[in-house]
Amino acid sequence: MPIYRAPLDDFRFVINELLELETLHDLPHFGELSADLVEDILTNAGKFCEEVLQPINQSGDEEGAHFENGVVRTPKGFKEAYRAYCEAGWGSLASSEKFGGAGMPALIALAVAEMANSANQSFAMYPGLTSAAAGALAATGADWMKENVLPKMISGEWAGTMCLTEPHCGTDLRLMKTRAVEQPDGTYRMSGTKIFISGGDQDLTDNIIHMVIAKIPDENGQIHDDLSTVNFFMVPKFLVDETGKMGARNGVSTGGIEKKMGIKAQATCVLNFDDAVAWRLGPKPDKEGEARSASAGMAGMFGMMNTARIGVGIQGVSIAEVAYQNALAYAHERRVGRALTGAADPDKPADLEIVHPDVRRMLLHARSFVEGARAVIMWTALNMAIADSSRPEKNTAGLLADLMTPVIKAFFTDMGFEAANMAMQVYGGHGYIRDNGVEQFVRDGRINQTYEGANGVQAMDLVGRKLGRKGGAAPMALFQTISGWLSENAGDEKLSRYVKPVERGLGVLQQATMWLAQHGMANPNDAGAAATDYLRLMGIVTVGWMWARMAKLAQAKLDAGDSNKPFNNGKLVSARYWMERMIPECPMLFERIQAGSENIMAFE
Amino acid sequence: MPIYRAPLDDFRFVINELLELETLHDLPHFGELSADLVEDILTNAGKFCEEVLQPINQSGDEEGAHFENGVVRTPKGFKEAYRAYCEAGWGSLASSEKFGGAGMPALIALAVAEMANSANQSFAMYPGLTSAAAGALAATGADWMKENVLPKMISGEWAGTMCLTEPHCGTDLRLMKTRAVEQPDGTYRMSGTKIFISGGDQDLTDNIIHMVIAKIPDENGQIHDDLSTVNFFMVPKFLVDETGKMGARNGVSTGGIEKKMGIKAQATCVLNFDDAVAWRLGPKPDKEGEARSASAGMAGMFGMMNTARIGVGIQGVSIAEVAYQNALAYAHERRVGRALTGAADPDKPADLEIVHPDVRRMLLHARSFVEGARAVIMWTALNMAIADSSRPEKNTAGLLADLMTPVIKAFFTDMGFEAANMAMQVYGGHGYIRDNGVEQFVRDGRINQTYEGANGVQAMDLVGRKLGRKGGAAPMALFQTISGWLSENAGDEKLSRYVKPVERGLGVLQQATMWLAQHGMANPNDAGAAATDYLRLMGIVTVGWMWARMAKLAQAKLDAGDSNKPFNNGKLVSARYWMERMIPECPMLFERIQAGSENIMAFE
Repeated sequence: MPIYRAPLDDFRFVINELLELETLHDLPHFGELSADLVEDILTNAGKFCEEVLQPINQSGDEEGAHFENGVVRTPKGFKEAYRAYCEAGWGSLASSEKFGGAGMPALIALAVAEMANSANQSFAMYPGLTSAAAGALAATGADWMKENVLPKMISGEWAGTMCLTEPHCGTDLRLMKTRAVEQPDGTYRMSGTKIFISGGDQDLTDNIIHMVIAKIPDENGQIHDDLSTVNFFMVPKFLVDETGKMGARNGVSTGGIEKKMGIKAQATCVLNFDDAVAWRLGPKPDKEGEARSASAGMAGMFGMMNTARIGVGIQGVSIAEVAYQNALAYAHERRVGRALTGAADPDKPADLEIVHPDVRRMLLHARSFVEGARAVIMWTALNMAIADSSRPEKNTAGLLADLMTPVIKAFFTDMGFEAANMAMQVYGGHGYIRDNGVEQFVRDGRINQTYEGANGVQAMDLVGRKLGRKGGAAPMALFQTISGWLSENAGDEKLSRYVKPVERGLGVLQQATMWLAQHGMANPNDAGAAATDYLRLMGIVTVGWMWARMAKLAQAKLDAGDSNKPFNNGKLVSARYWMERMIPECPMLFERIQAGSENIMAFE
Repeated sequence: MPIYRAPLDDFRFVINELLELETLHDLPHFGELSADLVEDILTNAGKFCEEVLQPINQSGDEEGAHFENGVVRTPKGFKEAYRAYCEAGWGSLASSEKFGGAGMPALIALAVAEMANSANQSFAMYPGLTSAAAGALAATGADWMKENVLPKMISGEWAGTMCLTEPHCGTDLRLMKTRAVEQPDGTYRMSGTKIFISGGDQDLTDNIIHMVIAKIPDENGQIHDDLSTVNFFMVPKFLVDETGKMGARNGVSTGGIEKKMGIKAQATCVLNFDDAVAWRLGPKPDKEGEARSASAGMAGMFGMMNTARIGVGIQGVSIAEVAYQNALAYAHERRVGRALTGAADPDKPADLEIVHPDVRRMLLHARSFVEGARAVIMWTALNMAIADSSRPEKNTAGLLADLMTPVIKAFFTDMGFEAANMAMQVYGGHGYIRDNGVEQFVRDGRINQTYEGANGVQAMDLVGRKLGRKGGAAPMALFQTISGWLSENAGDEKLSRYVKPVERGLGVLQQATMWLAQHGMANPNDAGAAATDYLRLMGIVTVGWMWARMAKLAQAKLDAGDSNKPFNNGKLVSARYWMERMIPECPMLFERIQAGSENIMAFE
């Protein structure tokens, strides 16, 4: 049976020491957030994930979600766990107090999301999607929706979904066919098919609020292959009136659920909209002739997607964390061969698997990634909070958070999959057997590289949009932030084994950015061919910098005689792993980037 | 529905032109092997794989192997396909004519194995294991076994298995508990449990010949945690007499089949041996007091394992090939976005996915790997044939084949999995859906990194055994062979874009080998920590060299006005991909190697 222990020590370290929680009380929602309160939340959330969500992860995979007679049923135990989850308020931590949430900073909710996804990704997605949908409704909904629909989503009584993809298009939403026609009463009637809708139907909540994008047809009833008339709508499963009262079933039906490689307990639905009543979100364009044009509600949808992208990056970390924990335990139980330097347990017939350097390498790879990535995510969540504050560095913080979003989504899900595979490898042949549970992490984790914008699309977003915007302000901000820290710490001898590699990585990243600025303009295919490698390069450098910062803290605590020596030594070992074995990828990635697109485009 | 087309053009190129079939008639089994005969075999085998094996691959995965009332049943269609496979003689191509085989070189059988595994890995394993077992029986069996058992295995009437792993040990066979006690009639009685036995039971053949390793207990009935009394046995499912007549059921029963991540149509069995009649293989030690010691039959087992390791490396290529073919087709059907340089199909609402550089990069990665790896495998098979010949270079050829075995097993299965994942990524979210079939390649291909010695164990075999043996003769042979070719072609300007990168890679590989020789001796953990990176380095350089050789051929044909321009241009593009994007890994891998083991061993 797989295990999971919430990594509370590490969250404490990152939140209290790396981010210095005590210095953050001026930020919105951080006012009354004490270390004790964080401790209380994370301890209880962790316990809930360990004791309620994790035990139904493997059984949920085995059983899968059901679809019979048009109705979706979640696996055994999900209903009870969902009720308990809502009652404890884990889904509403970061929601506004005005609508029934706890008003915590997003950072706390993200930490809880990491644990929930480690324990049970299929389960965590149900409330996760609801949160994303609720956020979008809060940003774009009419007052009555905020007052009478939103609180039910925040409490978990109702769920929410994101409906974007259609059978013939996901990445390219210009091709969307779902249409919404305005009615005399101001509502719309929507028809079309959406696919890959996570939590599109389930038996956990009384109602589901679908957040849907669709096109408004022109005066001839035609829709066009562009984005000009794409709008954002709320389409409830059961109709709601302005007081929030549930009425008749709306014209939304479930066409089926997908049979998938993993996250089998998550119902991935085909939703058919058949003249469904829909409410257009966001302010309606005023001007005559713009009645159909993309409304301001679309910004809400993009906001929802950004949050979701960070959420998926976290899932990459979650899967790696739980896979790592299980592999580490296995390597401490299984006996195989002898240590290369002579028997470690001469009285036993064989040594533990953990004595073997190659096994340690795989475990340390996973650990160094998980803890470094977790720090980057928390730091990005902090930047989001700063961006919403009145601090002078708010603009920089916003740029950094925006820049990190595709990196977190793509690099962390690639690495998460890599780490889960290494963990599986530690099990040898036993890893391939379903009962042992580790192969589920590989199957579940694989989706993270694909959904919410495939990782190649994230790389194009980084290279094609984020880098150049505002004259390159975002990468500049990152380079200045990192090089500022490096200068500050250049003189510290004990830190030089961390500072120097990050310096090297940053140098390469800056050169690569210059190369892209020069060549990507002249030949966009060069940017396209370089995008994935460039994103990985930025990810390695950023995680490396975070490791240098954490190593500094750990070293200082060791120097000060801190009692938790194994923890701090562990940090130094993980930091050094990244410097020794990940930073060397930087020049290699730059070399690949410089290869350009000529040969790739010549491929027929 | 997934597709598969046998890559006949590429086999023609590799066998006829790269290996120069016409110059090989002096080698054993190559005497009468004409290009026409190869063409005939590969065309028909390819057709069989496409038309018979591939159509039951996805249904076999969906249905899985069954286990009811102690009996294993294969999925629908497997029985009929197996009968047709045997009738066509695909399983006995390389077996000795003396025992009913076709007497072809192994190289031809390996080419057919690649196609069969692309079409249906689960299926191909049933006859694949039989071949391996038959080879071991041919090497170690008594005359009556060769005369009356072996021909039935070669014809496919009976199957064979390899029984090594036990519940508590796989890699470390010292810990084995299965025991075989000698009887007055010279046979043995075997008791114990073996797990992960591919094809351990099935409904395809009348009998199964298990090739089993077990220990002979000492005079007190004790067995020891070492290899001193490990012996190799034949244990049939149904007893056989010396005339080959089948008798009563032997004491071998199926305890169950494993539920696995993939290769679900392959019955991976738990086999219980309960006082089963067993025949010890190989000559019995003559000397008094050595009656229980490891017999010469063990060499037969290791021979079987070596063949199996090459076979698994081929499975890595097979999975990548079929995944690539499907992704390529998908990228030519699916429309998404616009080419970065302007619409490629302005009259269509979107361009084909293949216009995007990042998609092309993923496809080219898979293709460059598949064709390069295929060439290395065929070259290694040729070296095996030369090693069995009377050519002066026979010793060198044997060393090269031996050195390449762990590289083929580990690097090609790692890359095969990587390529299958990239192919899946080309499908976006649709890749995660079972119906589309590409995720099956990822699940099936994952086992290849684990079974037949996990890839980390292969790396230790390379670094700990193969490198140093006979004063480093094997790596020397490789370096001399490659550098000889490089010198010969140093002056060719058109080739320099291939020659120079291989030269660079080879230089790094030689330095890394020196580093290992120096440091691995002083600290074996340094060798252990470096093993996986070193194996990959050797793999990249060897494939790179093979690409340089193929580029030379393709360039010469283009210069001579060869009519098959797309084929030859494709070779140049794939070769250049390897030079531009894989060779740059070499210095990075060497840097990791030089990081040593200190930090990895400090990890707690």
